[in-house]
Amino acid sequence: MSKNKIKPSILAGFMELIPSDQILFNKMMDTIRKNYERFGFLPIDTPVIEKAEVLLAKGGGETEQQIYRFKKGDTDLALRFDLTVPLARYVAQHFSELTFPFRRYHIGKVYRGEKAQRGRFREFYQCDIDIIGNGSLDVINDAEIPSVIYSTFKDLGFDSFVIKINNRKVLNGFFKWLEIDKPLAILRAIDKIEKIGAEGVIKELENIGLEVNTIEKIMEFIGIEGTNEEKLSSLERLNINNEIFNEGVEELKLVNHYVGLFGVPRENYSIDLTIARGLDYYTGTVYETFLKDYPEIGSICSGGRYDNLAEYYTDQKLPGVGISIGLTRLFYQLSEAKLIKSEDSSLTKAIILPMENCLDRAVEIANILRNNKVNTQIYLEKAKMGKKFGFADKLNIPYAIIIGEEEIKENKYTFRNMKTGEQAMLSIEEILFNLNIKF
Amino acid sequence: MSKNKIKPSILAGFMELIPSDQILFNKMMDTIRKNYERFGFLPIDTPVIEKAEVLLAKGGGETEQQIYRFKKGDTDLALRFDLTVPLARYVAQHFSELTFPFRRYHIGKVYRGEKAQRGRFREFYQCDIDIIGNGSLDVINDAEIPSVIYSTFKDLGFDSFVIKINNRKVLNGFFKWLEIDKPLAILRAIDKIEKIGAEGVIKELENIGLEVNTIEKIMEFIGIEGTNEEKLSSLERLNINNEIFNEGVEELKLVNHYVGLFGVPRENYSIDLTIARGLDYYTGTVYETFLKDYPEIGSICSGGRYDNLAEYYTDQKLPGVGISIGLTRLFYQLSEAKLIKSEDSSLTKAIILPMENCLDRAVEIANILRNNKVNTQIYLEKAKMGKKFGFADKLNIPYAIIIGEEEIKENKYTFRNMKTGEQAMLSIEEILFNLNIKF
Repeated sequence: MSKNKIKPSILAGFMELIPSDQILFNKMMDTIRKNYERFGFLPIDTPVIEKAEVLLAKGGGETEQQIYRFKKGDTDLALRFDLTVPLARYVAQHFSELTFPFRRYHIGKVYRGEKAQRGRFREFYQCDIDIIGNGSLDVINDAEIPSVIYSTFKDLGFDSFVIKINNRKVLNGFFKWLEIDKPLAILRAIDKIEKIGAEGVIKELENIGLEVNTIEKIMEFIGIEGTNEEKLSSLERLNINNEIFNEGVEELKLVNHYVGLFGVPRENYSIDLTIARGLDYYTGTVYETFLKDYPEIGSICSGGRYDNLAEYYTDQKLPGVGISIGLTRLFYQLSEAKLIKSEDSSLTKAIILPMENCLDRAVEIANILRNNKVNTQIYLEKAKMGKKFGFADKLNIPYAIIIGEEEIKENKYTFRNMKTGEQAMLSIEEILFNLNIKF
Repeated sequence: MSKNKIKPSILAGFMELIPSDQILFNKMMDTIRKNYERFGFLPIDTPVIEKAEVLLAKGGGETEQQIYRFKKGDTDLALRFDLTVPLARYVAQHFSELTFPFRRYHIGKVYRGEKAQRGRFREFYQCDIDIIGNGSLDVINDAEIPSVIYSTFKDLGFDSFVIKINNRKVLNGFFKWLEIDKPLAILRAIDKIEKIGAEGVIKELENIGLEVNTIEKIMEFIGIEGTNEEKLSSLERLNINNEIFNEGVEELKLVNHYVGLFGVPRENYSIDLTIARGLDYYTGTVYETFLKDYPEIGSICSGGRYDNLAEYYTDQKLPGVGISIGLTRLFYQLSEAKLIKSEDSSLTKAIILPMENCLDRAVEIANILRNNKVNTQIYLEKAKMGKKFGFADKLNIPYAIIIGEEEIKENKYTFRNMKTGEQAMLSIEEILFNLNIKF
């Protein structure tokens, strides 16, 4: 390479795919989108760049360190680090133009300047849905969300996954009853149980300063076993005299009942009292979703219920419930687990390979296929037939149509299955039929 | 509003739509994507943030002033300002993993910190296709591109548009023959003819310092009239003894012939010798596309042929041809011209409105519709029926299914066309039939 060239490279922590993988990535994104739309969610798209003061309205924590923030002229700008803060700003700003309950989906890139490490991305797609009520939002919405998760992951090709459901009120009410005053620290400790095990959680609870007696009660509580109904009965039998706790149990019972009615099979959802979600804004139902065969991937879809979406921007009370799929990370994890197979991926269904002096007919055939909505490419360069076949092979294009003088004379064309090598001379009508186009 | 709230607002120069408009925007984007895929283009997606030195490899001009550039730690970063520079970097970086000719499409947001003014956006979607050859690329590719433009805009619902085609070699060869040495300045002057008229172009050419005699010849040349074939004959009759000119005329003839063969109707393309494209990297065929009834909108799709895509990153010679649709600006212009009608836009086909105590059946019906791929929402809040109908109306949902005790008893449900007000009691099978779902 000449010396004055710039090395073509991207920044660490950014995902970039070759087309055969990109096709699969986009298919996953399309599947997610179609499912979100099937449940009545409406699309929004917000700017990637916003005023820093808007994105940082809540402030504090990791966010402020990780955010990409910069000046252009005198303006203090930042890149969005999630889709929830822009949703809050959007709903507050467009409040009078929206119809509530407002169901929106948003699929877009977000940015976090994290330390670069394997499997962590600084730019990644989030695929979010939220249902926002004006003043109030019925808890039945919390039961519909798992059916969106189920439908989506089923369509993505997963069979063996479980949506774990809990309710923050159950945990918080229980802590209140125990007269513990650091519920958030305890929630965060419990939330790590998948990663650090029960032993680890006990250690963390000790570090928080809880007494052995209290820790035992907590561990016993989150260890309650059985079917969903058995767990609910056990909770009721504890006879905990706390309003929040009882409210939480009632909500959990209702959600458990309706999740089933919404068509989610028993094996795909489970009440799990260890699900706490580290984030402090959840106030009721919480969800996490795990692949049964790949627990090490962690939760592939999480979310929950919150009391007030946009308190930093408006006095309107806007309770909501939502979930998020981190698609970039999910795709990366599936690739690592060898569950992404791009060898067969192709958007193009047919390639036309004209022999010398047969280009005009090739163009005519391509027009017919394209007018019948068949994704079609013509090999337009001058080259030997072997090279042309090699091209079709490399791009995984399933069918080739060879056009030579013989073919033109007979008005029939060599139609070749590139996978099996089978081929036949077919009329254009027969070719369209084979490509599944009805007349 | 309480005093400690942050005003919810976005930056000037950024487009944000309400959902009914977003639905139409996304439909346009989907239509463009489907058409690009129909012609065998493969998707890529590159990071929005890249190394500043990579994006600014070419340097100079407006780019450097407009680019969003900032530091994170010690790293000098920038946001992409078009999709061409990332394509060049992508092809150079992934050269050995790609199959040439490489047909890629890329739909994504780009960023330019321009002065804010009406109709100018700092964040906007570009929808690009390019065909990149390894070493060489047949000129026949230049003839296929207009058929992609035609197919795309036809599918977008436009009838009356014209793809104007020219060839830089024709202009450059002509200038060489006139022994003029500032071809780029002249091209830029000619390029403005739609905006400033012939008079304006003459003035600009005078300012460049051309002699009256030369200016006359140029104006006569770009004023050549007639059908495409008549224009081509006129060019040949000029007897210009310049190799580049003659090459250009030959290419233009071939492109003109094949554009027709590729199925573009006569009224939708035209050779136009005033089309020059201001950008300096075009070297052959150039395109611009205009709506006949709205010329003031300017070109809605432009592009052309270039000799070497990635010279700043690699020694590989990579000629290509491509076009770009600036979707954000196009959508804005169509809205301004009242050509965007969002009153009817809905992705949701049916809404289920349960009366009191009828929720369970509503959920069951929703499951059936969703399993049959009908986008369905249930009104889940407790409210009077009038409010529920109002909700369906505001969201433009075309069909409502009302479920009361009567309906549950009869296993038939009130199916209402929300547009016409017509309604009937139908079984679930009949409802699915009316929603066009085959069993």
